[in-house]
Amino acid sequence: MESHKKDELCSVDEILVKHLNVKDLEEYNRIHYGRANHHFIDIDKSNNEYATANGFEIKAYDFPARHEETRKPRIVRIGAIQHSIVSRTFKPINEQRLAIFEKVSKIINTAAKEGVNVLCLQEAWSMPFAFCTREKVPWCEFAEDVMDGPSTQFLKEFAVKYGMVIISPILERDEQHGDLIWNTAVIINEKGKVIGFHRKNHIPRVGDFNESTYYFEGNTGHPVFETRFGRIAVNICYGRHHPLNWLMFGLNGAEIVFNPSATVSGLSEHLWAVEARNAAIANSYFTCAINRVGTETFPNEFTSGDGKPAHNDFGHFYGSSYVTAPDGTRTPSLSRTNDGLLVAQVDLNMCRQIKDKWGFAMTQRLDLYAESLKKYVEGKQGRQIVHDN
Amino acid sequence: MESHKKDELCSVDEILVKHLNVKDLEEYNRIHYGRANHHFIDIDKSNNEYATANGFEIKAYDFPARHEETRKPRIVRIGAIQHSIVSRTFKPINEQRLAIFEKVSKIINTAAKEGVNVLCLQEAWSMPFAFCTREKVPWCEFAEDVMDGPSTQFLKEFAVKYGMVIISPILERDEQHGDLIWNTAVIINEKGKVIGFHRKNHIPRVGDFNESTYYFEGNTGHPVFETRFGRIAVNICYGRHHPLNWLMFGLNGAEIVFNPSATVSGLSEHLWAVEARNAAIANSYFTCAINRVGTETFPNEFTSGDGKPAHNDFGHFYGSSYVTAPDGTRTPSLSRTNDGLLVAQVDLNMCRQIKDKWGFAMTQRLDLYAESLKKYVEGKQGRQIVHDN
Repeated sequence: MESHKKDELCSVDEILVKHLNVKDLEEYNRIHYGRANHHFIDIDKSNNEYATANGFEIKAYDFPARHEETRKPRIVRIGAIQHSIVSRTFKPINEQRLAIFEKVSKIINTAAKEGVNVLCLQEAWSMPFAFCTREKVPWCEFAEDVMDGPSTQFLKEFAVKYGMVIISPILERDEQHGDLIWNTAVIINEKGKVIGFHRKNHIPRVGDFNESTYYFEGNTGHPVFETRFGRIAVNICYGRHHPLNWLMFGLNGAEIVFNPSATVSGLSEHLWAVEARNAAIANSYFTCAINRVGTETFPNEFTSGDGKPAHNDFGHFYGSSYVTAPDGTRTPSLSRTNDGLLVAQVDLNMCRQIKDKWGFAMTQRLDLYAESLKKYVEGKQGRQIVHDN
Repeated sequence: MESHKKDELCSVDEILVKHLNVKDLEEYNRIHYGRANHHFIDIDKSNNEYATANGFEIKAYDFPARHEETRKPRIVRIGAIQHSIVSRTFKPINEQRLAIFEKVSKIINTAAKEGVNVLCLQEAWSMPFAFCTREKVPWCEFAEDVMDGPSTQFLKEFAVKYGMVIISPILERDEQHGDLIWNTAVIINEKGKVIGFHRKNHIPRVGDFNESTYYFEGNTGHPVFETRFGRIAVNICYGRHHPLNWLMFGLNGAEIVFNPSATVSGLSEHLWAVEARNAAIANSYFTCAINRVGTETFPNEFTSGDGKPAHNDFGHFYGSSYVTAPDGTRTPSLSRTNDGLLVAQVDLNMCRQIKDKWGFAMTQRLDLYAESLKKYVEGKQGRQIVHDN
């Protein structure tokens, strides 16, 4: 499987580091990323060598918070994995899945060595993102049971072995309720127990994203999972375009919201750095946006509804996973082209500290908006338009 | 009045243009701004010379939309003015205001020559942003009547002369209702008539922004003004941190939302490029973020509530005004340090085209959120938290 097209740029930051002098780069970083230097955390040398030998990168960054007198620091290491698929997509399903398991197991082992406490994988991580095809066969066969499907079984072992909370976004098959398919994130605690799951709330119908052909809008609300390592939630992929989705996770108490995604350049790349970051700012929590990498080619050709000829690939998944803190500072992105592990050491106390400082929660006038939205959806009053008569 | 500190960087883009080769710059622009080139519109030579002679810059950009069979293009030129104050702040109020009028009149004349149809000024444009001082005297005397205060009278003449809609964000004095002060945007149509006004919905209490000392949260809802040049709305300054504020303007039909602001580096600059842009994306409309420039020094010292010594200036207002289209593409920012006129030629048809393409409005599940918010504010049910027992 080709992991990326040869002409794809690896990283915007590489361009900047190569061309800008130290002073200009610091000023760029201050204005763009929110801090003049990135607060790199050193990676263990043997882990770095192992990563290089196995074709993935590791980057780690620190987000310290102010010391408080009445609360202890709550320091957690977030991990995010972005990866390309491994086998060709015409291979048997189990073979494709096991090849991904083998690749990802190496990155998880490394994440554990780098002290990761909460790890999130990309959307539908254990399969190719085949929803561009609109074919039900064989792709629906990738769908798995939340509690004991192959992905859950595979990850449970790592969760127990490393005492790690793992978020596993899969294609779900709900055998108990009409054999329905859902786009779902499974939350496995550090003892290997599935403590819950969340189904994707907003489903795209744009470009090659024909996901509404396969599954419906999620029916699990906006759960926040109280784990040993903080209160976490999952906003799956296209839900990042919806500020109300981010808001409800915040109101329910989230301190870290993961955004496992699958999205391609030419469509969304200029939005990518904006949306999850805006959510962190607006809701005073950490966000972690994760995107798969590489170009996936399918056996049968399909069209994109744009008048262009039929083709066999989805386009380039541009990776670029990144973490944003409640204060709006963020990490650089992982590579646009390669597998990677992103680690962010965060002090969860920053969430409340930023609420106190900026006051967005205090000033948000939720009562006003609850009333306005209710009237709007009930159609009881017209829109507030001032006509120029 | 010093317009800026000597050591302030003028523009991030200047750094990039200076250091990056053409190919890298195009790739940066494609990924960051959403298009490889900026679609510059040529500025009339004499206007450019006049601007340079008078200490401001002019930049103009084009946002074309697809040709439709059943609707004509609706092409409008948006203008935004950012400027520093002129007189020292201990001078008589009328003198300070008239000096600003004189400066701004030159930029408005130029905007008219560049074909601007809808022009917006910065927040509290006709006065220094004195709310850092917490002094009521003399700053409250800058407050003006919406219908016939000095700023409205001044701008009406330009509106009539040039057939231009002008948005004038002022400190309002409402003599009819208890002599209250508000932070208000006045909408003057192309015939010089005040067609309405909007009061700032969200008031900051952060850093030197002691605005809650002077005025309360706005009581005018989320009006959208149906003008000859499209449906416009105004989200004043701190309201840009609130996605629900942006949302309601969108639901009420806005096609362009202006965000006249006053904000300083060291506090919000790394958020500046994110929030108004995210709003354009989430709501499929154009946004225009405007920030004042320069450093304003006040007669009496004040503190910032951060343990640092008392001082006399608010910090550096970093300008950087920019426009974002519904498709998430955006202009570079105006200067961080100088007065400027930003012109964007937009086809308002792009709003609906992007709604059709991305489907954010269709997929936003407002009924779900209206219900969730209602329950939340009524406290009728707890937060949706999954405990790990």
